Amino acid sequence: MSYEIEDKIRDECGVFGIYMNYPATLSDPAKIAYYGIFALQHRGQESAGIAVSNGQYIKVYKDMGLVTEALHPETIETLQGHIAIGHVRYSTKDNSSLINAQPLALHYNKGMIALAHNGNLMHDGTLRQELADDGAVFHTTNDIEIIANLIARHSKNSIEEAIIKCLPIMGAGFALLVMTEDSLIGVRDPMGIRPLCLGQSNGDYMLASESAAFDTIGAKFIRDVKPGEIIIIDKDGCRGRQGIETGKKAHCIFEYIYFARPDSNIDGINVYQARKELGRQLARENKVDADLVISVPDSGTPSALGFAQEAGLPFEEGLMKNRYVGRTFIKPSQQLRELGVRLKLNPVREIVKDKKIVMVDDSIMRGTTSKQIVQMLREAGAAEIHMAVASPPTRYPCYYGIDTEKPEQLIANSMTEKEIEDFITADSLYYISKEGMIKSLQNDECNFCTACFSGNYPFKYENNKKP
Amino acid sequence: MSYEIEDKIRDECGVFGIYMNYPATLSDPAKIAYYGIFALQHRGQESAGIAVSNGQYIKVYKDMGLVTEALHPETIETLQGHIAIGHVRYSTKDNSSLINAQPLALHYNKGMIALAHNGNLMHDGTLRQELADDGAVFHTTNDIEIIANLIARHSKNSIEEAIIKCLPIMGAGFALLVMTEDSLIGVRDPMGIRPLCLGQSNGDYMLASESAAFDTIGAKFIRDVKPGEIIIIDKDGCRGRQGIETGKKAHCIFEYIYFARPDSNIDGINVYQARKELGRQLARENKVDADLVISVPDSGTPSALGFAQEAGLPFEEGLMKNRYVGRTFIKPSQQLRELGVRLKLNPVREIVKDKKIVMVDDSIMRGTTSKQIVQMLREAGAAEIHMAVASPPTRYPCYYGIDTEKPEQLIANSMTEKEIEDFITADSLYYISKEGMIKSLQNDECNFCTACFSGNYPFKYENNKKP
Amino acid sequence: MSYEIEDKIRDECGVFGIYMNYPATLSDPAKIAYYGIFALQHRGQESAGIAVSNGQYIKVYKDMGLVTEALHPETIETLQGHIAIGHVRYSTKDNSSLINAQPLALHYNKGMIALAHNGNLMHDGTLRQELADDGAVFHTTNDIEIIANLIARHSKNSIEEAIIKCLPIMGAGFALLVMTEDSLIGVRDPMGIRPLCLGQSNGDYMLASESAAFDTIGAKFIRDVKPGEIIIIDKDGCRGRQGIETGKKAHCIFEYIYFARPDSNIDGINVYQARKELGRQLARENKVDADLVISVPDSGTPSALGFAQEAGLPFEEGLMKNRYVGRTFIKPSQQLRELGVRLKLNPVREIVKDKKIVMVDDSIMRGTTSKQIVQMLREAGAAEIHMAVASPPTRYPCYYGIDTEKPEQLIANSMTEKEIEDFITADSLYYISKEGMIKSLQNDECNFCTACFSGNYPFKYENNKKP
Amino acid sequence: MSYEIEDKIRDECGVFGIYMNYPATLSDPAKIAYYGIFALQHRGQESAGIAVSNGQYIKVYKDMGLVTEALHPETIETLQGHIAIGHVRYSTKDNSSLINAQPLALHYNKGMIALAHNGNLMHDGTLRQELADDGAVFHTTNDIEIIANLIARHSKNSIEEAIIKCLPIMGAGFALLVMTEDSLIGVRDPMGIRPLCLGQSNGDYMLASESAAFDTIGAKFIRDVKPGEIIIIDKDGCRGRQGIETGKKAHCIFEYIYFARPDSNIDGINVYQARKELGRQLARENKVDADLVISVPDSGTPSALGFAQEAGLPFEEGLMKNRYVGRTFIKPSQQLRELGVRLKLNPVREIVKDKKIVMVDDSIMRGTTSKQIVQMLREAGAAEIHMAVASPPTRYPCYYGIDTEKPEQLIANSMTEKEIEDFITADSLYYISKEGMIKSLQNDECNFCTACFSGNYPFKYENNKKP
Repeated sequence: MSYEIEDKIRDECGVFGIYMNYPATLSDPAKIAYYGIFALQHRGQESAGIAVSNGQYIKVYKDMGLVTEALHPETIETLQGHIAIGHVRYSTKDNSSLINAQPLALHYNKGMIALAHNGNLMHDGTLRQELADDGAVFHTTNDIEIIANLIARHSKNSIEEAIIKCLPIMGAGFALLVMTEDSLIGVRDPMGIRPLCLGQSNGDYMLASESAAFDTIGAKFIRDVKPGEIIIIDKDGCRGRQGIETGKKAHCIFEYIYFARPDSNIDGINVYQARKELGRQLARENKVDADLVISVPDSGTPSALGFAQEAGLPFEEGLMKNRYVGRTFIKPSQQLRELGVRLKLNPVREIVKDKKIVMVDDSIMRGTTSKQIVQMLREAGAAEIHMAVASPPTRYPCYYGIDTEKPEQLIANSMTEKEIEDFITADSLYYISKEGMIKSLQNDECNFCTACFSGNYPFKYENNKKP
Repeated sequence: MSYEIEDKIRDECGVFGIYMNYPATLSDPAKIAYYGIFALQHRGQESAGIAVSNGQYIKVYKDMGLVTEALHPETIETLQGHIAIGHVRYSTKDNSSLINAQPLALHYNKGMIALAHNGNLMHDGTLRQELADDGAVFHTTNDIEIIANLIARHSKNSIEEAIIKCLPIMGAGFALLVMTEDSLIGVRDPMGIRPLCLGQSNGDYMLASESAAFDTIGAKFIRDVKPGEIIIIDKDGCRGRQGIETGKKAHCIFEYIYFARPDSNIDGINVYQARKELGRQLARENKVDADLVISVPDSGTPSALGFAQEAGLPFEEGLMKNRYVGRTFIKPSQQLRELGVRLKLNPVREIVKDKKIVMVDDSIMRGTTSKQIVQMLREAGAAEIHMAVASPPTRYPCYYGIDTEKPEQLIANSMTEKEIEDFITADSLYYISKEGMIKSLQNDECNFCTACFSGNYPFKYENNKKP
Repeated sequence: MSYEIEDKIRDECGVFGIYMNYPATLSDPAKIAYYGIFALQHRGQESAGIAVSNGQYIKVYKDMGLVTEALHPETIETLQGHIAIGHVRYSTKDNSSLINAQPLALHYNKGMIALAHNGNLMHDGTLRQELADDGAVFHTTNDIEIIANLIARHSKNSIEEAIIKCLPIMGAGFALLVMTEDSLIGVRDPMGIRPLCLGQSNGDYMLASESAAFDTIGAKFIRDVKPGEIIIIDKDGCRGRQGIETGKKAHCIFEYIYFARPDSNIDGINVYQARKELGRQLARENKVDADLVISVPDSGTPSALGFAQEAGLPFEEGLMKNRYVGRTFIKPSQQLRELGVRLKLNPVREIVKDKKIVMVDDSIMRGTTSKQIVQMLREAGAAEIHMAVASPPTRYPCYYGIDTEKPEQLIANSMTEKEIEDFITADSLYYISKEGMIKSLQNDECNFCTACFSGNYPFKYENNKKP
Repeated sequence: MSYEIEDKIRDECGVFGIYMNYPATLSDPAKIAYYGIFALQHRGQESAGIAVSNGQYIKVYKDMGLVTEALHPETIETLQGHIAIGHVRYSTKDNSSLINAQPLALHYNKGMIALAHNGNLMHDGTLRQELADDGAVFHTTNDIEIIANLIARHSKNSIEEAIIKCLPIMGAGFALLVMTEDSLIGVRDPMGIRPLCLGQSNGDYMLASESAAFDTIGAKFIRDVKPGEIIIIDKDGCRGRQGIETGKKAHCIFEYIYFARPDSNIDGINVYQARKELGRQLARENKVDADLVISVPDSGTPSALGFAQEAGLPFEEGLMKNRYVGRTFIKPSQQLRELGVRLKLNPVREIVKDKKIVMVDDSIMRGTTSKQIVQMLREAGAAEIHMAVASPPTRYPCYYGIDTEKPEQLIANSMTEKEIEDFITADSLYYISKEGMIKSLQNDECNFCTACFSGNYPFKYENNKKP
C-alpha cells in the first residue's frame, strides 16, 4: 500500500447509502450497497468501498479497482450492520492511491462516523489551512477529510446541527453521505449541482447519486433530494430538512450530456430522452447532406439516434467498441488515450465505405480522440465525415466535482470551431448551440450549471482555491 | 494454484499468432500478441496466455482473468523472442483452473513446442485412452494436451508432416496454432467449422481467430485459412498447404449470429451486415404491430436495427446495459445468470412506457433471461412486448468447440414456440426461419454448420465421445 | 484492506531512523532503514513500514508481515529522500490491521510529519477524549495518532518546542521518532523505560531501539539517548536537549530478560552477559542435583549456559527448535500457543533419555508452554526435570509498551511457586530472586522498572486508563 | 505464473505421506501432511505442495514459498481425501518456478497418480531423450516427470510391478513417494543414499524423509525404509518388499553433517549425537590454545559443544543469528550470500573481545562466508580466531540430490588447507580427518557415501549426465 500525499484531488464519484431497521441478515445492507455502487460503477472505476454500522461501531473496507475487484464475497460477509454506505471514485492523475479512497471512517467526540461524497469542496485550501492552524492533522489530501474535521468541530450538539453549521462553509458542488453509529444522513449542496436522490424498498430508505441504482436493486425512486436539503434516516424513519437556503438552482448539465446513465432520471429529466433531444436539436440546427448517421459509442448513441430520426437518415453501428475497456473520459495520460482509441473502437468497413457519414459524439475535450476516429473512418473508406457534437464547445474547467481537463488542454479553449474542424480533419463540424442545448433540456423546475461552456460559474470561485 | 482434474472440457476460445523476422525490440511479438488477444477478448474471459520463442527455447506466461488482468506490462517485457502465440478462453463449469489455460508449452523429441487452439477434439475419450495405454501421462484434461501427444508421436520427420499425419485423427471443429522454436503454424479443421484467418503487417505474417484482431493492431487481413489447410510461417515466409482433403464446408453459423465481433469478416461475410440482414429477414417474415423496436444489447442490436429499418419502425435503446459485466452466454451457474439480468440490464422507463415494443435478441438458450427481461419491461410500463429472435430455435448441443447448454437445458429442446412464448410471458414470439437465416447469410462460397438448429451434424459424432 | 477500529492497542515495537546529508542514491536512506528494522524484526513481526522525506514531502509505505514480506525491492526504490524512519510492530489480539501500522504520515500546519514509536501513551483514554472534544478526529486507535494531534496543537513555533510542550502530557514508557520534511527527532520517555540509542556511520546520524541494528548496517553505536532527552538531527548535525527533567530512571528490566537481542547493549549493559549472569545467579541460589542443563531455545540459552558453567554441569541442546516459527510470546490465541509448542520444539531423545535435567527458561507467563515442554521431555524419557527460571514470577501487567498477559492469565498472579511446579508437572521449580536479578544486572548508572514482578509502577497509572 | 523451462534441475527436498483408513475429517490427511512437511521445512524453502486422493481422484495444491506461505488454511480444507503426500523443495539458481514444484499429479492409463521425491535421477538426459523419441512430451524439466513417464510405460500390471521394473533404470540417490487413487507407496534408492522412514500413529502409516516429522505430529517412528525397498500402504495395511537387490549401502554422510535436523535419527544414528561426536573428534585431533569455543549457528552448534566439552573450554554464543533469515546453503547468488552474512550474524563484542577463540562450523563450501565471519570477529576485538571444521574439505560435487556448488566454486577444490586458512584470514584452520569423521559416525550397520569429500562415487556417474 503506497500513500503519497499530493497537492489536490478532484473527483467525480458515486455514492449509495441504505438504512435497514430489520435486515434479514446482518450482511444485507452491505450487499445492497454493493449492488448499489455496482450500478454506479460508471461514475468511478478507480476504487470502491463500503462502510457499515452495527449501532455500536463502524467498519469499513475499501480497495483499488472496480467494485467486483475491490470487494469480494467474503469481505462483504464481514461487513455486518444495519446501515451501510458505499462509494466509487475515479483516479485523477497521480492521486490514485488507496489512502484517498472512500468511505472515510473516523472516531470523533460522539463516537464513530463514516463519510462518502461526490463533488468537491470550495475554498479547500483555505479551510485546510485554517483547520491545521487550529491543530488539525490530515491523513489524506481528500476534501472529505476536511469536511469530517469541520463536522467534528461543530458537533457539540447533534450531528444534524453540526452539518447545518458547516453547510455555509462548504460552498457548492457536492452530494454527501454521513453515517453515524445509528443514522444515515444525505446532504445536497445549496444549488443542487451534483445529483442525489431518495429511494425506498420494503420500508427501508436509501440514498443514491442516480436513480438507476434503485432500479438495479429493485427499489423505488421517491424523489430527488432538494438543493441544500438534509435527509435524516434513522429508527424513526426518514425526514428532510432545509439545511441552507438557496435562491438559485444550478444542476450540472454535463450529467445529462455524458456522466449519468441514460436510464437515470435527474431532477425530473430522463437522461436518455435528454440526450436524444439534444441529437434532434442538433439535427434541426444543422442540415447535413449524408447517407447515414453513426455514433461514437456508447455515450453518443442516444443523441445519434435522435439526430438520425430528426434528419430522416438511417442509424448504423459504424464503430464497434471493445467492451473490455473503460471510458475515454477516465483514462488519465495523453499517451494512453491515443492508444486507447485504436484498442477501443474499430470501424465496420462494410458500413462506412464510400458513404457520407454524420458521426455524433456527446462532447469534445482535447480533440485528439475525435481526430483519430475521423482518420480511422477515412482509412476504412468513408467518403465524407461530418462530426456533430451534442454539446457546445467545452471551454472552461469544472470546479464542482468533475475532473475536466485543464483549460489549456481543452481544444475549444484555444481554437475556433473552424480550427477544430481542421484539427480533427473532419469534412465539417457542428456543435449544438447553447440555446439549443438549454431548450432541449429545459423544464420549469430546473436551472443548470453550464459553466464549462459559458464560464459563468454559479458559485463564486476564489483565487486561493486553485494552484 | 489449484489443479482439479475433471472429466471433460469444452471451450470457445480465441487464438492469435505472429512471426516477426526482425522485431524492433524482442518484446514486440508478445506485445502484438497481447493486443491481438485483447481484440479477441469476447471469445474468452476466463484466462489469457502468451508463449514466445526466441529461436532456442519457448517461454510461456498465462493466468486467470481478462487479458489486462492476467498479463502485466512487466510480464510482457520478459517474454522475449521473434515468434509469439496468444490465447484467451472461457470457463466451463468447474474446469476453470489455470492448469487448463493455454498456450501449452512442452518439450518433445525435437525441442520445444507450444500449442493453442479454439475448438475441441472429436473422440477425445478414445484418443486419450489409446495414448495412455501406450504410456502417455496427462497433466490436464484439456484436448490440447491430447493433440500435443499425437503430434509428438508422429514427429519422426518434420512438424509439418506430424500435423498432416494427425489431421485425420483429429476430426473437425478446431483452429490450431502450433509454435516451434523457429516456426509458426496454423491449422483449420477439414470443414472450416471454427474460423482462422491470415494477416500481415510490415512483411510480418500473423494468424487470428477473427479479422478484427488485425484491425486493432493496424495489420491487413489477407485471407481466411481454408478448411483443412496448414499455414506454415518461418524464416522463408508464409506458405499454405492442404493438410487434408475435404469435400464439404461447414462454417459455424453461430459465429455470425452471436460469437464473432460485428466488425469481423469471416469466410467472406461481414458479421455486422449478416446480423442486420437476419433482422431484416425476421421483419420480412413477421409483420408486427408495434411502436418501436429495441434490442437486447449488445449482440441483438444489429439485428434490431435491420428489423426496425425493414419494418419502418423507430429503433430505441430501451434497455440500458451496465458495461461492467460480461455476457450472459458466459457466466456459468443458473443462479448467477438470473441475478445477472437485473445487474446487467435496466429498462428506460420513459421510452417503453405505454408502448408496443418489438424486442430483438440474437438467440434464446434457456429462456430464463428472456423471461426476466420481458417482466422487467412490463414492470416498466410497456403495453405489449413482442420478442423477435434472429436465429431459429436452438435445440441441439454443439460438439465443435462451443459450450452450449446440455440439450435438456435448451428451452427449444422441450417446448414448442407457443410454449416458449408463454414461458417468457411475451405477447408474441417470432423466430427467424431456418431458410430465412440461410438466405440472409448465403453467398456462393459458403456452406454452414447449422447443427445446433437442425441436429444435422456435418461431422460424425460417435457414441464414445460424450458421457 | 480491512479497518476495524477497536478500543485499545498496546504494542512492543522497534524503531529506526536515519538522516543523510548526501545519500549516494536517493533510495539509500530507505534501504538502510530497511536493514535497520530487519535487525529489529524480533521486536515486531506483524507489520513493517518506512517513511522518507525528500525535503519537500513525505512518502510512506507499510504493509502487514515481516520486513521482507511487507517491503519489496521495487517498493524501496520508490521511497526516495534523505531522511527515513522505519517501524516494526506486533499484533495484539484483533487489532492487527494495516490502519494501525506505523510510521504514521500526516499533514499538519507546518507541512508534513511522520511518526513512529515503541511504547504506549499514559492516560490515552483521557487525552483522546479531550482532543475529540476539541474537534479532533481519529483514523486509528493507535496512541501514535494521539501524539500526532498533541504535537500539531502545540506547533505554533518549532516542532522541537511542540514536542517539549507535549512531553509532560505524554507520561512515560515510550521511544518516539518524529520526521519532518527536513529533520529527524528522537525522544525517550522521562524515565527511559523503553530503549533508544544513537549511532553514526560516515557522518550520518541514526537512531534505533537497539544497538544491534547499528552493527547490522555497519554503523557505530554512540550512546543511549538519555531519559527525557530529545535528539534533533538536521542539516546542522546532531544535538541533544533535555526535554523534560526526571529524577528517576526506570529502564525496563524485561528488555534484558527476554525482549532485546543478546548482541545489543542497552543503557550500558550487554544483554547476553546480563542473561548469562542471571543464569549464574540462578545456579548460585539453587543447587540442583542433575546430569545436564538444557535451555528452552532461543531466549533461555544464555542463562542456561551461565547456569551450566556456574553449576559445573554440561550444557546440551536438548530441545530442537523449528526455525520457521515465531516466538511463543507473540502468537495470540491460547489454542495456537499450545499447538505451537509441538510445532516449535522437539526433544532430542538420545540426549535427555534417563537423564536428570535442569531446563532453563527466561520467564513463565501462563505456564501452559512450560507444562507441555516438561511433558514432552518426560515422554522422551527424561528421568527428572527441574525447571529454572531466569526471572522472578511475573505477576503484574505492563503499562509501558509491552503487551503482557492480563493479570488473571499470568500463572504467578494466582498460584504459589509450589502450585506452579505442580501445574507444569516439573520435579522442581526454581525462580531467581528479585534481589538476585537486580544484583546480576546492577551497574551504577541504572535503575530498573520491575513492575511486572513487583507491582511497583514507577509512573503513576490512573484509573481512567484501562477498561 | 511463469514457466521457463531450463536445462536441468537438481534439488534437496523433503517428502511426507500418510494413509488413513478412517480420517476423522476428510481434511485430516492434508493437515497432517501440512505439519509433516512443516517439520521438514529445513529441507526446502522454495515451494511446498500437498496432493490428496479421495479414492476416486487426486487433487493437488502447490505454491512458491514456505509451507505457511504456500498453503493456507482454506486451501487445506479443500484438500479432502484419505491419502495425502506433501513436498518441500528448494530453489536452484533460476529454476525456481512453480512448474517444477511437487507433488506432480497426473493421469495415466490406470487413473490418477501423484509423485513427490527427494533426490535426482541418474542418466536423466538419456532417459528423457529415449522417452521423447518414443513420443513422450514433458511439461517440466523435473526428474519426477521422467519417473512418472517411466512408471506409466510399465504400468500394464500393478503400480507395484511398474515401480519394480523402473528401479533398475532409475539409478541411485532418491527417496520417492507415489500416491495412486487408493494406495501410498514409498521407495528408497538401492543404496539408501537419501533417507526415508516409516512411522505410525493410531494405526495409520506414514512415510517421511526424517524421523523428526513423526515427532512433530505425535507419531511413532517404526523403522528406516531399507535401501531398494518398496513400502506399499493401502487398505490392507503396510507391507515392505525388496524392489531391487543391492550389495552396498551408501548413506549420504552430509545428512549427518548439515542437512538433517539434529533431532532426527537416520539409519540408526541420532544426528545431534553424530554432530557432537564430530566436534569431540575434531578436538581430539586438534589441540588449540584458546579461551573459549563458539559456533557458527545453528548447524555448527552441536559440534562446537562437543569440541568445547572435549577440549575443556567454555562454550559461548559468540555469534548472534537473526532468526528471520534462511540458511547460507540455500540462498542462490554470490552477492546475496555475502550480504547475507552481515544480515544474519553479529558477534557479541563483550564475549569475543580480547579472547582467543575456536570457531566451529559444520563445513566450508566457497569460503567467502567463513572469511566474512572471521573479519567480523576480528573487528569485534577477538584476539585470535581458530576455525575448526566438523567435516573434511568438500572437494567434489554431489550427483545424488544435493545441489552443492560446482567443483570450481568449492574452495577446497582449488586450494590447500593452508591457502584456505590464508583466504579466510583465520589464525589457524582445522578440518576433521576423513578417518575421524567415519569413526565418529560408524556403527556396524552403516556404510556412507562420502563422495563430496573423496570423489569416490558409489554409483557410477556417466558422461552424458552433466552438461
